[in-house]
Amino acid sequence: LRIGEPTGFAAYNPPVRELDLLNHIYSRNAGLPSRVTIPPGDDMGAITIGGASVLVTVDQVADGVHFDLATTPLAKVARKAVTRNLSDVAAMGAVPVAAVVAGCLPRGFGEAKANALFDAMRAVAMSYDCPLIGGDISMWDHPLLLTVTVLAETAGVEPVLRRGAKVGDNICVTGTLGGSMETLDDPPDYVHHLDFEPRLNVARKLAGDAMLRPHCMLDLSDGLGKDLPRLCAAASKPEPRPAGRGPSVGVELWIDRLPISRGAHRAAQRDGRPPWQHALGDGEDYELCFTIPREIADRFPTVIEGVPVTQIGRIVAADDDAAITLRMPDGSVQPMGEYGWEHHD
Amino acid sequence: LRIGEPTGFAAYNPPVRELDLLNHIYSRNAGLPSRVTIPPGDDMGAITIGGASVLVTVDQVADGVHFDLATTPLAKVARKAVTRNLSDVAAMGAVPVAAVVAGCLPRGFGEAKANALFDAMRAVAMSYDCPLIGGDISMWDHPLLLTVTVLAETAGVEPVLRRGAKVGDNICVTGTLGGSMETLDDPPDYVHHLDFEPRLNVARKLAGDAMLRPHCMLDLSDGLGKDLPRLCAAASKPEPRPAGRGPSVGVELWIDRLPISRGAHRAAQRDGRPPWQHALGDGEDYELCFTIPREIADRFPTVIEGVPVTQIGRIVAADDDAAITLRMPDGSVQPMGEYGWEHHD
Repeated sequence: LRIGEPTGFAAYNPPVRELDLLNHIYSRNAGLPSRVTIPPGDDMGAITIGGASVLVTVDQVADGVHFDLATTPLAKVARKAVTRNLSDVAAMGAVPVAAVVAGCLPRGFGEAKANALFDAMRAVAMSYDCPLIGGDISMWDHPLLLTVTVLAETAGVEPVLRRGAKVGDNICVTGTLGGSMETLDDPPDYVHHLDFEPRLNVARKLAGDAMLRPHCMLDLSDGLGKDLPRLCAAASKPEPRPAGRGPSVGVELWIDRLPISRGAHRAAQRDGRPPWQHALGDGEDYELCFTIPREIADRFPTVIEGVPVTQIGRIVAADDDAAITLRMPDGSVQPMGEYGWEHHD
Repeated sequence: LRIGEPTGFAAYNPPVRELDLLNHIYSRNAGLPSRVTIPPGDDMGAITIGGASVLVTVDQVADGVHFDLATTPLAKVARKAVTRNLSDVAAMGAVPVAAVVAGCLPRGFGEAKANALFDAMRAVAMSYDCPLIGGDISMWDHPLLLTVTVLAETAGVEPVLRRGAKVGDNICVTGTLGGSMETLDDPPDYVHHLDFEPRLNVARKLAGDAMLRPHCMLDLSDGLGKDLPRLCAAASKPEPRPAGRGPSVGVELWIDRLPISRGAHRAAQRDGRPPWQHALGDGEDYELCFTIPREIADRFPTVIEGVPVTQIGRIVAADDDAAITLRMPDGSVQPMGEYGWEHHD
């Protein structure tokens, strides 16, 4: 059994090759000029322009990979194309300011649909004070692909990086996890991976409040089982531009504390797997995952800006990066394995 | 006969529908917040972040549309993906500072090729002091598509807009035009649409020198016959945010002054059409097109930063936007027609 198997039209999780390629890209960061203040490898990159820090992220959504055009209303496609990026902005504790869109439209898509699609993207973006300020459109004989780039500003709050988890930190997540492709009744036709709310307000509160500020943060796009190892790997990366390595850290994940979504329960009913496996592996949660000093864990709020915050584990010393162990409800502890928990089940 | 017919693997020119869609998008500019200093419709958009003006542009290149992966070395694909955007930066007289890349790779593309592609994009970008600071990678069962977003700064020079052509201005272009898909021998295997040099230095010199500064500028991506009407349309657009309309302007184009590229001559030899038709309609020139006050036309340099600059016509009063007339070598004058000169031949 393997977490991340497609339950719908396509796989949630990127194949290993994509991660390899990303790592290949990150390995070249050392040569970047000093004005690059956040190099590739975080949820956004950042560069100094005219004395200001400008953050930027890009994400693409493709028909057949990230949505199914045959069954998904255009408004939801447009929403996801924009909000995926906004979730990255949230992960930095930044404020979105502008977006540009590139669209590759299948020939014969039709002018009315194209207009509706771009109108919807503009409306979604504007609803987050993130106006579309440019774009590029091509036609081709292949599926619809939308690429959105979002610029963000720090607005007085230092970005929260992926790097920074410390042994002893508690790990928190917002919202609930798993089953993001399930269609729910309340609200009607809610499908999390399309309709999720990027956690901009929560992130801003966390990043800007000295009593709450996390050591590190990312957004959960590929599932906790894949994103936690990234948090660990980032923790032991050298400082912004090389000097040495931090200690290797791992995670002890408290399975009985995972906030299980209604979608995860729904998915579990269908396939008979325990709901926590869906919470751990399904992906496309677009929730925040961050670590906080143990000293403040006891009095850390359980709701921020109306969104539940749950402590689900802790950062531990580890022999190698990204060793994740699961503390099961019966008290036993088992390794998760490298790409989810496929090694045991 | 129609300019812009594909001479190679795909059409140079976007179908009318794309222009319609872009116009639909631009029609919504009035609602943008005031910090958007250059709204959609120019070569780059701009927004104020922390007191600094940040320019941004996005462009995509797709296998089978903008290059043919079967016959194009990866290094040239990577180059074009980046330099198309840099040509937009040049068109504003701005300075590139950072890029992000989204890649949709065909499944089975292979890790070695993927690494080589991204390494080449990074190297090209860095060679223009425009480091890659982020990216997104997906796999799918369709052709390779690369979307590059470039951020730029003004670095003390007010951007030159598309809007601003005045009746009486002379129209200039850099370099030579036409036949951008032809393979030339010198330099070996030079194919202009892949190997062109974005005109950053010329543009910077033009924009930053009070004696040379153009009234307006764009880069020639779809061919003079399509891009000149855009310059005219922009000239009669309302000021940044509405107040009224400028006068309608058109162009008198001096056919015997067009700087004909070696590629255009090559293409003309093959299809028997006059070379100037290729210069007017082939597209993908990535040269600068700008207008200058008539008063300085006589003493305007014919070479800037080592690149030839040619005066090819003038801005005239017109009853409707974008009326282009051709002054032929025999002295006769004829209308170009709306999408090139297909109405007469």
